[in-house]
Order: sequence, then C-alpha cells, then structure tokens
Amino acid sequence: MGPGYTAGVSYDESEMNLAGDLLAGDVRALARAISLAEDRDPQATALVAELQAHTGRAHLVGVTGSPGGGKSTLVDALVRVIRERGRTVGVIAVDPSSPFTGGAVLGDRVRMSRHTLDKGVFIRSMGARGHLGGLAAATREAIHLLDASGRDVIVVETVGVGQSELEISSLCDTVVLVLMPESGDAVQSIKAGILEIADVYVVNKADLSGAEKARRLIQDAVAMAPKKPWQPPILLASAVKEEGIGPVWEAIESHRAFLRQSGGLEERRRERLKQEVIALVAESARDDARRAVEGDTPVGRLLRDNRNGRLNPYSLAADVRAMRPARGAEN
Amino acid sequence: MGPGYTAGVSYDESEMNLAGDLLAGDVRALARAISLAEDRDPQATALVAELQAHTGRAHLVGVTGSPGGGKSTLVDALVRVIRERGRTVGVIAVDPSSPFTGGAVLGDRVRMSRHTLDKGVFIRSMGARGHLGGLAAATREAIHLLDASGRDVIVVETVGVGQSELEISSLCDTVVLVLMPESGDAVQSIKAGILEIADVYVVNKADLSGAEKARRLIQDAVAMAPKKPWQPPILLASAVKEEGIGPVWEAIESHRAFLRQSGGLEERRRERLKQEVIALVAESARDDARRAVEGDTPVGRLLRDNRNGRLNPYSLAADVRAMRPARGAEN
Repeated sequence: MGPGYTAGVSYDESEMNLAGDLLAGDVRALARAISLAEDRDPQATALVAELQAHTGRAHLVGVTGSPGGGKSTLVDALVRVIRERGRTVGVIAVDPSSPFTGGAVLGDRVRMSRHTLDKGVFIRSMGARGHLGGLAAATREAIHLLDASGRDVIVVETVGVGQSELEISSLCDTVVLVLMPESGDAVQSIKAGILEIADVYVVNKADLSGAEKARRLIQDAVAMAPKKPWQPPILLASAVKEEGIGPVWEAIESHRAFLRQSGGLEERRRERLKQEVIALVAESARDDARRAVEGDTPVGRLLRDNRNGRLNPYSLAADVRAMRPARGAEN
Repeated sequence: MGPGYTAGVSYDESEMNLAGDLLAGDVRALARAISLAEDRDPQATALVAELQAHTGRAHLVGVTGSPGGGKSTLVDALVRVIRERGRTVGVIAVDPSSPFTGGAVLGDRVRMSRHTLDKGVFIRSMGARGHLGGLAAATREAIHLLDASGRDVIVVETVGVGQSELEISSLCDTVVLVLMPESGDAVQSIKAGILEIADVYVVNKADLSGAEKARRLIQDAVAMAPKKPWQPPILLASAVKEEGIGPVWEAIESHRAFLRQSGGLEERRRERLKQEVIALVAESARDDARRAVEGDTPVGRLLRDNRNGRLNPYSLAADVRAMRPARGAEN
C-alpha cells in the first residue's frame, strides 16, 4: 500500500513525518493533518488513504439535535466524563454555516480553555472554509485522522439532520439525539423521522419544566415504532449543571457493547464503508468534471465562448462523462 | 434532441403527453413532473433534458435566511404582489429536514388555501422524501420544469446557507436575504459571509424594535465590503402586515434589470450552467458507484463477503473508478 495509489496523488516527502508523528499521537501533527483535510488538500486524502490500516479502533459517537438544544455544552460535559473514565477523546464540531476556520469560535475557546492542559482531549471546529461541498469529505477525513492518531472516542457534533452529505448515522457507531425540553422539539423530531436514527435520546435542560413531558412524547413515539433489538434509552440531563451525564455516557457504552455482541457494529461499519466508497467516487468525479469544464476542453471552451445559443446542461454532462475513459491513463 | 440521449434513459411513451401538457401550462402535468423529480425518477431527468430548449425565460428569485425569520410569510406576501403585477409565479419551498412530501405541511395548506383559486400560482414544498442527497437534483429539476411550463417568476425558498448542494446563489438570478430584526441575526449573517451572496436585504418584522438597528448593522457591513456595481438595497418590511412588500418586489425587479444591462445575467447563467454540468456528472457517478457497490461486481462482493479483513475505502473507490469505462457502451 505505497503512496501514490490514490489516482496519482501522493503526499509530499516533507509530509512523510506527518504520518509517523500522527500515528505516534502527536497533537500538532494531528492538527496539521486536519487543517490539510479542511483545506481539501489532496495530500490529506493521500495521508488518510495511507493510514487506513491504522483506523477502525475508535468508538464513533454522533451528537445531533436542533440548534439551541445545548449540544456543545453536553459534548463538553461528556468529554469530562470520558476523561474521568481514563479514555482519550477527539471532538469534531461540524458547523456548515460557518465559512471560517473558527466555526463557533467563542464556544470553542471556552471549551478549549477548560480542556487546554489535557492532551487527552482534542477539539476541532470544522466550517465550510470557502470550499463548498467539501465539508462532508473533510469531516470524514478528520474522523479517520483522529482514529489513526489513537483517540479512543471520537465525538462528531452536527447541527440537525437533512444535510444529506453529512448524515450522522452514516458516519457514526452510536447516534445521540439531544432534545430540548419543549415538547415542540420532540414533535418536530418525530415528524422529521429523526427519532429513527437515534440510539440514545437525551432530553437536555431537564431542570426546565416540560422535560418530563418531552420524555413521555418520545417514549410513546418509540413504543409505536417497530420493535428493534436495541431499545434506545431516553435520558434526562442538564449539561450546564453537569447532571445526568454519567448515565448518558454509560448508555453510549452499552450501545457499543450491544453492537459488538449482535454483529451490528460490523454491519454498520460495512454500510459506512459502502457509503464512503460511493462518496469518494462521486467526489472524484466532481473534481474531474470541474477540471473538464474549467479547462481547455471542448466543453470548457463551449461554456466560456457561447454567447447566446442555449446550451443543454444534460448533453454537456454527457460530453464530460464521455471524456472520462481518457483519464484512466493517470492511474 | 430526441429522447434517449441522456445516457440511455428516455421517458415512457405514456409520459409523452406530460411534456406537451407541461409546455402548454397544464398545472396537473407540472405537478406530476415535479413529483417524478422528487422521487428521483429517471423519467423526470429525461423530461427536463428534453425541455431545455424551453427554459431560461423565468426570473429565478432565491429567498433565504435563518429559520423563524418569516421567510414563508414574506414569500406569500411577495406572491400576492407579483400576481397584482399580472405575472405568474411558481414557488419551491425546500425543506431538507423533512423526509415527507408535505414539508411544512401546515404552512403550505395555509398558503395554498389563500392562492388556491389562482392558476397563476403554483406552490410546492420539497422534502428529502427518503432520497438523501437527491434533494439538490430534484430542486434543480423542479426549477427547470416550472420554467418550461411558462412561469414568469420562480421563487425558491431555502433555510439558511451552508447546504453546499443547495447553494441558493448558484441556483438563482436574484438572492433575497430575510433577516430578523434582532441584531444577533445580522451579526451572525455577517460572520457567516451570507451578506456577500445577497442582492436584496429585507429586515422583516420591522414593526418590532431593533429593526432599524439591524438595518444599520447591515448597512455598515455592506459599506465596508469592496464596492460592487450593484449596491444591494436594505429594506424594512412586515410580511405579516403586508407592509413594505411592494418595494421588495421592485428591488428584485431592479436587480434583474441591472443584471440584464450589465451583462451580469449572462454571466450568472453561464456560471450556473457550469455548476449544473458538474453536479450532473457527480450525481451520475454517484448512481454508477451505488450500482457498482450494491451489484454483483468484484467490489460489491468484497464489501458483502468480507468479514474481518480491513478494507480500504480509497482503494475500493479506485477500483470502482477503474470499472467506469465499460459503462461507455451504454451510450
């Protein structure tokens, strides 16, 4: 599995230490590699491909829910519990609305300062950083990089669902859905079909009135769904007060144990692998197509020079697809 | 441009009338075609490809902004103004969080009932409908279908930005950003770089305190940005009270007139065509890859039969890509 096998892209000699340093758990190498991924640098992709043999060990935990539900605070409290259990953790907070590196800059700083002296915690916000469409790929690569660097637990925090490319359920082993105590949030989640993807429910801000009602709503909805081997627990917690966080972590661990015993972990990972292969092929086709339409090609010239004739995107796309075989020479 | 030229897919004989009826402005044919698009039925794609020569006439207006900002109400009020000006309109409300056809079902019903007797108004909510990743393609196709059916104005309403595949600025001629009167929303939009994509700003709920402050914040941010030939107006409106909606529509029309005069319309459409070609190629590669990994292929068998060996998604993706040339036979 030498460098260069990912369609002609290999990482630079100068980055060779990056792989070794990252595998050795070096935090700066990890941060550098994730920055390359966020910049959609082909070297990151080559690095991730190279490191595949060292991945697959981490427990991937997705935390999702509506904005304002307290996801970040819950993740922060979870990180503390995970560390108390003696395990290392990496957090990726995905914020597609931010084109900046910082993402939720302020939130991050607060969290960073709290865990700043702890090398067992690595927190990173990922924004779109101007590379629209690349966030899903960057997030996947960041997960692999954290995994290869030896983090025991990787927490991926995302806003809501509906971001097709970032479907948390196709990225993680265990999905935690954080709900607000208002029953409106529960009803909305039921309607949107989010309940189906959750392995653990957390009604956050449980000190507010309405939490128990929200819990019952979810319980009823779960009871009405077809019975599954794993019965997702519905927990009350207050992330701000750090109450009920231990049980949340134990539920996450129970789910992982269940997945291992039932063969579900293998199944999820197989499905994830399949989705990743599909995504990688689509992304590479997108890059090829971009080069074709922006380059000195018949389609590219047609797109640039055409002044008034109507061009049909469907036939142009067929033309670009027909160009593809020639690219095989690259491999 | 006969049927069948889009990579072997042609629409059914029984759907032949659909094209004719849709071109004649038949509302049921339009609704049927958009349903096919939403279902990601290959016949919809073939139909859209076939109808390309009849598109390009409509004014495409994107309306975006944070949830809760009153986008739907504003669109509803705009529709009334557009109709008063004697023009026909199609509305596509994109709600990626909804896996149901209905999208914001209740909101739709309210709006439908108001415009229900008016054949000059066509409103459609698009949800993910279980086809993750297909929403962007379905939305693009729906826009083409409305365009071909002769709608003068097509309004595309989307939640916020950051949905790479659904970037409103790459779908529309004119982008309207709806802001809440709270300055927090303005600041957030400035931070997220949304201001740059807007051609018209609307501070909604202008009867609430804070609207004027929000307007000034945006004005300052716009003043600090590099000067552009088009100075985006910042308007106050109250969609609920239907106050200030006329000026919003006039600003949208002014922007269109500006684009026509400056050559910007051609430029935007060229860029849109380019992005669409890229998206079409990527989507078709995604479909091919899905068939490859799920079918009776070496990669498909490997993914299904492998029990414990670690498989590398990057080398599997390279294998799938290498399979592609064989597909050329289909064309």
